[in-house]
Amino acid sequence: MRRTEYPAAIRDLIQQLRQMPGVGPRSAERIALWIVQAREEKPEGIARAIAHTRTVIHPCAQCGFFATEELCEICADESRVRSLLCVVEQPTDILPLEKTSAFRGRYHSLGGRISPLDRVGPEDLRIAALVDRVEKEAPSEIIFALAADVEGEATTNYLVDLLKKFPVTLTRIAHGLPAGGGLESADELTLSRALAGRTKLS
Amino acid sequence: MRRTEYPAAIRDLIQQLRQMPGVGPRSAERIALWIVQAREEKPEGIARAIAHTRTVIHPCAQCGFFATEELCEICADESRVRSLLCVVEQPTDILPLEKTSAFRGRYHSLGGRISPLDRVGPEDLRIAALVDRVEKEAPSEIIFALAADVEGEATTNYLVDLLKKFPVTLTRIAHGLPAGGGLESADELTLSRALAGRTKLS
Repeated sequence: MRRTEYPAAIRDLIQQLRQMPGVGPRSAERIALWIVQAREEKPEGIARAIAHTRTVIHPCAQCGFFATEELCEICADESRVRSLLCVVEQPTDILPLEKTSAFRGRYHSLGGRISPLDRVGPEDLRIAALVDRVEKEAPSEIIFALAADVEGEATTNYLVDLLKKFPVTLTRIAHGLPAGGGLESADELTLSRALAGRTKLS
Repeated sequence: MRRTEYPAAIRDLIQQLRQMPGVGPRSAERIALWIVQAREEKPEGIARAIAHTRTVIHPCAQCGFFATEELCEICADESRVRSLLCVVEQPTDILPLEKTSAFRGRYHSLGGRISPLDRVGPEDLRIAALVDRVEKEAPSEIIFALAADVEGEATTNYLVDLLKKFPVTLTRIAHGLPAGGGLESADELTLSRALAGRTKLS
């Protein structure tokens, strides 16, 4: 009998690994064979790190960022400006904004955006928690930093409608030409938004 | 204070994942963030599959292929021709040969090849076990299917010297033009080997 398959444990491992983002059939097989053959307990370390991370990391009770305590390090930081709130789609959107050093306030991650096609409605997002925070924290400005696409804008518009009754300035980050990008590589929509959002120089 | 890093557990997970072949810093981060946020216990399943595979899979006591019992499925298969032995470098070389259906014998994986630069000598490979098998199993032919490069050939030559005292035919798989490859895409060495290994047609 010809053997054209690995033993069941390896085949199952390959299937499991394929669930990871960016890992196709060939790289899953390559990783699985490395796992089978690796020395020095490296794969065991990976298995432990996965299980450990799943145990200790959970969403911050306030903003939804990754936390090990009830509040994440940003929400627990007393030096952060309490009157500025930046609304993002995902907790993973927070670090890129932090790296700019351009924002000293706090965040609120919605956990996604309204998307009827994906059956994500307002009730599936952390919108009630946002309204709660606006009532309790009474920020002076809420900056919407959602994606510059149809669903990101629809979600921003929905939230603006919901929050405009509060005494708070609502703003949105600028849409325009990306840094380093020439006009020839920008699409029409980006250019029309860049034109519409032009700023006065003198 | 600015937060430009994930919590320690996530940073450690990213470092661990980077040990996997083909996983660079960006894909390790992407996979780690998926692990943190995934639903339905998928990451736990992966961690369990890694640990399970490491426990149940070990090298076949005879040929070095992946096994769950003492012998792998190929060595345990009574229908395999016992007089043909195919020597390969790695256990991962066995399935590609099996898929050809062109070989009905059994295998012997060396676990590598002689490579002074990587400090791999004959004593680091399963060469003594190969000599043992040749003595005990007395195969009629040993087919060397090592890589067609300097170290693969040097290892083959070493084994031929070692085994030529036994009453066994020693052969090597052909080196030549790969299937589907035109002459224009073959390098000089491949072409000179293809010429040297030409077969008579009539």
